Amino acid sequence: MKIAPLSGFPEYLPEGRIVEQHVLDVLRNTFELHGFSGIETRAVEPLEHLLSKGETSKEVYVLNRLQATEAKDAEFGLHFDLTVPLARYVLENQGRLDFPFKRYQIQKVWRGERPQTGRYREFVQADVDVVGSENLAFHHEIEIPLVMADALSKLPIPRVVVRASNRKVAQGFYEAIGIGNVEETLRIVDKLDKVGPQAVAAMLAENVGASEEQAARALALAEIAGTDASVADAVLALGARSALLDEGLDELVRLVEGANDLVDGSVVADLKIARGLDYYTGSVYESTLVGHEDLGSVCSGGRYDSLASDGKRTYPGVGLSIGVSRLLSRVLGSGLVQPSRKVPSAVLVAVNNEEERQAAERTATTLRRRGIPTDVSPNSAKFGKQIRYADRRGIPYVWFATDDGPQVKDIRSGEQVAADPSVWMPPAEDLHPTIAAARSEDD
Amino acid sequence: MKIAPLSGFPEYLPEGRIVEQHVLDVLRNTFELHGFSGIETRAVEPLEHLLSKGETSKEVYVLNRLQATEAKDAEFGLHFDLTVPLARYVLENQGRLDFPFKRYQIQKVWRGERPQTGRYREFVQADVDVVGSENLAFHHEIEIPLVMADALSKLPIPRVVVRASNRKVAQGFYEAIGIGNVEETLRIVDKLDKVGPQAVAAMLAENVGASEEQAARALALAEIAGTDASVADAVLALGARSALLDEGLDELVRLVEGANDLVDGSVVADLKIARGLDYYTGSVYESTLVGHEDLGSVCSGGRYDSLASDGKRTYPGVGLSIGVSRLLSRVLGSGLVQPSRKVPSAVLVAVNNEEERQAAERTATTLRRRGIPTDVSPNSAKFGKQIRYADRRGIPYVWFATDDGPQVKDIRSGEQVAADPSVWMPPAEDLHPTIAAARSEDD
Repeated sequence: MKIAPLSGFPEYLPEGRIVEQHVLDVLRNTFELHGFSGIETRAVEPLEHLLSKGETSKEVYVLNRLQATEAKDAEFGLHFDLTVPLARYVLENQGRLDFPFKRYQIQKVWRGERPQTGRYREFVQADVDVVGSENLAFHHEIEIPLVMADALSKLPIPRVVVRASNRKVAQGFYEAIGIGNVEETLRIVDKLDKVGPQAVAAMLAENVGASEEQAARALALAEIAGTDASVADAVLALGARSALLDEGLDELVRLVEGANDLVDGSVVADLKIARGLDYYTGSVYESTLVGHEDLGSVCSGGRYDSLASDGKRTYPGVGLSIGVSRLLSRVLGSGLVQPSRKVPSAVLVAVNNEEERQAAERTATTLRRRGIPTDVSPNSAKFGKQIRYADRRGIPYVWFATDDGPQVKDIRSGEQVAADPSVWMPPAEDLHPTIAAARSEDD
Repeated sequence: MKIAPLSGFPEYLPEGRIVEQHVLDVLRNTFELHGFSGIETRAVEPLEHLLSKGETSKEVYVLNRLQATEAKDAEFGLHFDLTVPLARYVLENQGRLDFPFKRYQIQKVWRGERPQTGRYREFVQADVDVVGSENLAFHHEIEIPLVMADALSKLPIPRVVVRASNRKVAQGFYEAIGIGNVEETLRIVDKLDKVGPQAVAAMLAENVGASEEQAARALALAEIAGTDASVADAVLALGARSALLDEGLDELVRLVEGANDLVDGSVVADLKIARGLDYYTGSVYESTLVGHEDLGSVCSGGRYDSLASDGKRTYPGVGLSIGVSRLLSRVLGSGLVQPSRKVPSAVLVAVNNEEERQAAERTATTLRRRGIPTDVSPNSAKFGKQIRYADRRGIPYVWFATDDGPQVKDIRSGEQVAADPSVWMPPAEDLHPTIAAARSEDD
């Protein structure tokens, strides 16, 4: 039987999982601090739901039971994001949920794409969304990037900048300068960082019939960035005006001023953010790791006026999604973070000989009842060998039953002291594995 | 588009997820207290691995990319347990893991079975295993049920009894009384609780050619239970003897005496536990919820002499698996547990009017920085309406900016006091949602 890693399906050794679990804990705790409820949805959705977004049909994994005889089995696939399941969950439970519904969701998603660096076929996403019933106040568009900025700032990763624009600004501006095909223009401008301004200008001319001047003005808009009302002044200085543009600029300034007033440096207005997807209707967000811009956006999203609708009732939403696996691929792959040990145990209880194993187990039980993660030596070999067992795993303390009573040794310093298992406690920083961030370029 | 629950794919409302998350946290924390490392494996395994266990081929969900053109896409399926992936993970990483490898794993698994009460197509399993390289000491067969007994005793559920037997006892006994087909006998005896002794005797006669006396002795063995060496005496009193039987009885007595010496009442020897699967070679375990025996075993496993092998090296293991979803279906379905509120927030900051929203956000930011989960009212309606917003979600405190300075109201008692957001702290029991267990029959 062939045993081999599967391309696009990342797995970690236990020490890598400690880092991933730490990241997931920080995200969850921060989302809950901000009042978001956790949910999980099933991995499976009807194909008609998965395909209604268009464009992604090639990426879906379809499920069949191995021995299925009925054709109707082939109607389900694995979810490729957490937004389609959220929309379905909201409609299915609309009578039982309280709106605005603030939810976070941290789950694996699957896409049958060709795997490449930072792109996986199975990966973890962490989403926060606020969903309203019929209405959703604008202030939630300020709330969402602040939640993410808070979460990302607590992770052992390089600094993350959340960048925002507003779909109304782009649409209002393009229409005001006479560009008709707004959706296609957004898709082209979205490629600016990848292909550069000359290629974007050429595509604008070819695909949406933009004149040289129209392309230049679209590119000038994309160059504007800032953290206050000067952004609106810079846009208006380009000479285009419309009611929609004014509304978008008002929202964009409220967003960056409101967010930075609460948390300085949290959100930057950046007019080149386009998000080439046609369902966004207000604020749009992207985020990059400082010094790792090549990785692309690690956290993206925006406002939808219709996240879900059952024909009678419409549910607007605003949300952001972190690509946790992509973030981890970089921080683990580049050795940016390091767990303090490979196992949860703070203490290894040594075993003098197999007759005394039960006494060692009693010591371990006492330590565990007091919240100290503890392992018992699996063998009663020479103490040097038992200490190496702890050392190899990074367990900082080894416990001995000696003729002078119980003693505990810090194997890093070699210091060994008398200790009572019903009283002794390691320093707080040794109780659980900790994650140290290596210094990054910009710190 | 049809919006409907999918049979066999359970989902919870946010308040149910609070209970599930609490259960998962208790399991994880307990496993780590006992020194087990967490891992996750990909959802997907090669079909040849999934099918090598036999019997389950009907249950596997096969994956295909929707637009797949190559036939080789159909070689993967979703894992149906966490043991097959563990075996593959151990072989794939054998050079990078430290043995004995103590791992826990809490993940969803999928089976294309017909859904019924407590049986799902997607469900969560929580597994602990110890895997050795070539050898695995017997004391790990005592360790594993103690880890599970500790975890289960901390959950807000009715009492769980871990029952154990030993494959060597059953095999040694059946062979000694002249029954040849041990595997089939185990499968038949495994049905004892479901079909009763008369049906088992009939099946033993028909399927393994057992005489009336042989069937009676097999049934007499299955009636023996206890927590000390008297179990071995009772088995020997049935008159059969063999070296394998003696070895098994020695192990079984060491298990129940060792476990109960450390944690009284943790493990009961119960000779009717058969586990009708042929890969177990030593201790076997099952567990039932007291008062909910109809649910079947919620936690099962045993010792394998060959969990994995690459032809050169063999990895023995011993493990237990909790059916978390089955447990939750009962405790949530029967209203046995109740979360203290439906959302994480301990505080709702009221908003006097939209002009003062930013001040409310600042208060919330101060509270959150001090670890207090806080929500801000999404509207600035009359205070009565904002209090109802908190009440509907179970948020215990509402924060007001008044002319006399900031005040906080406990909306359960109605008491309202002056409070400083940089100092005030709710009682510990109000900080996070708590889970209350309803009293069960036997408490």
